[in-house]
Amino acid sequence: MPHCGRVRAVLIVQKYGGTSVGTIDRMKNVAARCLATQRKGHKVAVVVSAMSGETNRLLELTRQIQEDPNDREVDVIIATGEQVSVGLVALAIRAAGGKARSFLGHQCKIVTDSSFSRARIVSIESQPIKDALDAGEIAVIAGFQGVDEKGSITTLGRGGSDTTGVAIAAALDADVCEIYTDVDGVYTADPNVVPNARKVHRISYEEMLELASLGAKVLQIRSVELGMKYGVSIHVRSSFSDVEGTWVVPEEAAMEKVVVSGVTASRDEAKVTLNDLPDTPGIAAKMFAPLADASISVDMIVQNQAHDGTTDLTFTVPKGDRKRAMELLKDKVPELVGKDGERITYDDDISKVSVVGVGMRSHAGIAKTMFELLAKEGINIQLISTSEIKISCVIARKYAELAVRALHEGFGLGK
Amino acid sequence: MPHCGRVRAVLIVQKYGGTSVGTIDRMKNVAARCLATQRKGHKVAVVVSAMSGETNRLLELTRQIQEDPNDREVDVIIATGEQVSVGLVALAIRAAGGKARSFLGHQCKIVTDSSFSRARIVSIESQPIKDALDAGEIAVIAGFQGVDEKGSITTLGRGGSDTTGVAIAAALDADVCEIYTDVDGVYTADPNVVPNARKVHRISYEEMLELASLGAKVLQIRSVELGMKYGVSIHVRSSFSDVEGTWVVPEEAAMEKVVVSGVTASRDEAKVTLNDLPDTPGIAAKMFAPLADASISVDMIVQNQAHDGTTDLTFTVPKGDRKRAMELLKDKVPELVGKDGERITYDDDISKVSVVGVGMRSHAGIAKTMFELLAKEGINIQLISTSEIKISCVIARKYAELAVRALHEGFGLGK
Repeated sequence: MPHCGRVRAVLIVQKYGGTSVGTIDRMKNVAARCLATQRKGHKVAVVVSAMSGETNRLLELTRQIQEDPNDREVDVIIATGEQVSVGLVALAIRAAGGKARSFLGHQCKIVTDSSFSRARIVSIESQPIKDALDAGEIAVIAGFQGVDEKGSITTLGRGGSDTTGVAIAAALDADVCEIYTDVDGVYTADPNVVPNARKVHRISYEEMLELASLGAKVLQIRSVELGMKYGVSIHVRSSFSDVEGTWVVPEEAAMEKVVVSGVTASRDEAKVTLNDLPDTPGIAAKMFAPLADASISVDMIVQNQAHDGTTDLTFTVPKGDRKRAMELLKDKVPELVGKDGERITYDDDISKVSVVGVGMRSHAGIAKTMFELLAKEGINIQLISTSEIKISCVIARKYAELAVRALHEGFGLGK
Repeated sequence: MPHCGRVRAVLIVQKYGGTSVGTIDRMKNVAARCLATQRKGHKVAVVVSAMSGETNRLLELTRQIQEDPNDREVDVIIATGEQVSVGLVALAIRAAGGKARSFLGHQCKIVTDSSFSRARIVSIESQPIKDALDAGEIAVIAGFQGVDEKGSITTLGRGGSDTTGVAIAAALDADVCEIYTDVDGVYTADPNVVPNARKVHRISYEEMLELASLGAKVLQIRSVELGMKYGVSIHVRSSFSDVEGTWVVPEEAAMEKVVVSGVTASRDEAKVTLNDLPDTPGIAAKMFAPLADASISVDMIVQNQAHDGTTDLTFTVPKGDRKRAMELLKDKVPELVGKDGERITYDDDISKVSVVGVGMRSHAGIAKTMFELLAKEGINIQLISTSEIKISCVIARKYAELAVRALHEGFGLGK
């Protein structure tokens, strides 16, 4: 286990988010942390995000020209945010007396597919990083970006630097991937909403996956998937303190045997409903093919019981993709949704609240309790979706905080 | 000659400076110009600078960590300025209905040496650009940047986008390299200083070289050298109008047979004086070796007549290199300049005013007239340097504008 690694030489990947490198002073703090780790005799590779606000500033420039962010050139533009960060952090390490070298996606080399703005890592040719580490340098690696087989710059999607961090840790066979952020770990609920939320010290990849995908915002979901696939121990902790954070580890490791481990609310999705579809085989496949082709990830899908030969189908997509999803459907399957999309309705004002926990697999009644707790607050449930370790309900957005507090309290997650 | 090229299909390289791409609206204007050129049946490659102010903003970030800009990581950081520009211009061309693709230095591929912050182009592997042009795309190429043999990002120094433009034109065997800027050509003097300055319609590479190196700021000196070496016709013109600008062409072409073609003032240099040097052979070589090794370009060098076995030596360097030059001398040749550099003095408050013209080779008396004109205004001359087609005088900076006006008037350059 990584905990025991401190007494021998280990290879540590540290990933710092936008807030952690948001100012020059904070970059100097990151440099100091990297150097302190190296001085303990460890090899250090550090993955950094763009300075906070920078990616949005760059995206705003592109939006003044075109709305659609799924574009080769948009990736060229927003990849510069991380490029500036790695240069500055490498400079800061050297100014503090260390040795450092920056690596961009095309230098590492992080090869991805060509799905611009949401590329997936295909391989990492990590020899240049290993050479730098062997030479005693701290390798400062640009998060979020890669390069496709034609040499075009790609980006991995919002939060992609986490994925870069874990992928680099896997490629280097690192002992641990430390994810530094502005909170000191994963909590049972958002502390801004639930004041007595409790820090989770250990959590399984599976639970973290549910929490990440449900809006806990601490770790990008794909980074957790990668960690699970390659067995990378992930340590989520604060860049502003030295306290132990949350370890994301295999389920077999000593887990806290609680039924429900966390409550989350996501505000990043929109709901699309298709009314009066013919209830014939193949409809759903036909409907979601254009969305899959466009790499739009559909989350919840609910189809109700047919009556009178027609059925309604509702699904959720990331809010940023909602408009495009509707256009694609109008364009590709007009026979189903109507040429002007007259059978489509949508709602952006939703929130998805979820309870997550490995324990709930073997405990009946969690769903019932959840629905009762929401009903007691007068909150109407629009959609329900369940998995082995989570239950999610889509509700009106205005009730999100109220729902999270009620569930956190109702499941006894407070201190 | 390029003038005749408009009736057949030609390959045109257009280079747009920071002011020309300083806002999103101006980028749209650049896109429209590129498309208009392409619609005439031409192939168009466009080289763009960083948005005005961006390079300085990025340099300021690096300065908060370290002063010395000659650094691999600084190039990584400042190269992002052009990266953002090419992405935005390519987007703008596509938004206007055209086809476009951006190219970064490592994609073009512009190979340079490893002199960070002042790299020189070694070769251009231009096939990717040719492929794009053959496919009907407008190639949007990042100015100012390249990549060394190890794959590290390099930059070409201030104004390097001009050099990129001319180098790309040479590599593509383009018919003309149009340099778009915020003025509509090369003038006999700075119109802000001399209201009746006149636009020069044709000028030789040699004269332009002198004007460029002397602070006319319209074209980077290395771009003119490259143009001369490869016979690239350069057309300097305004991105805000359609008027014909200034053609930089071989001297053999019909030149305006004037004696003096322009007057310039440079404020970018500093003067360093070494006092009481031993008057023995090899001193100057020993003195300038460390500066050459550090790629610091020394401009004027004046050594006075020795007396009492010692001599004084004065030279000018770019103001940004002055401090470093002095430190190098203290470090490398303490036996000459004194361990604490006590024999060195310097002056940053200087200006170099120059008169330039092919005609002056065969006309006696230009120097005499120049000195008289300055004397008449009570301006003391600190250093003099002459070449076949220019005479330069270093004077106190406060007199720069007065000197330029007096010389422009005295040599009859007004309309």
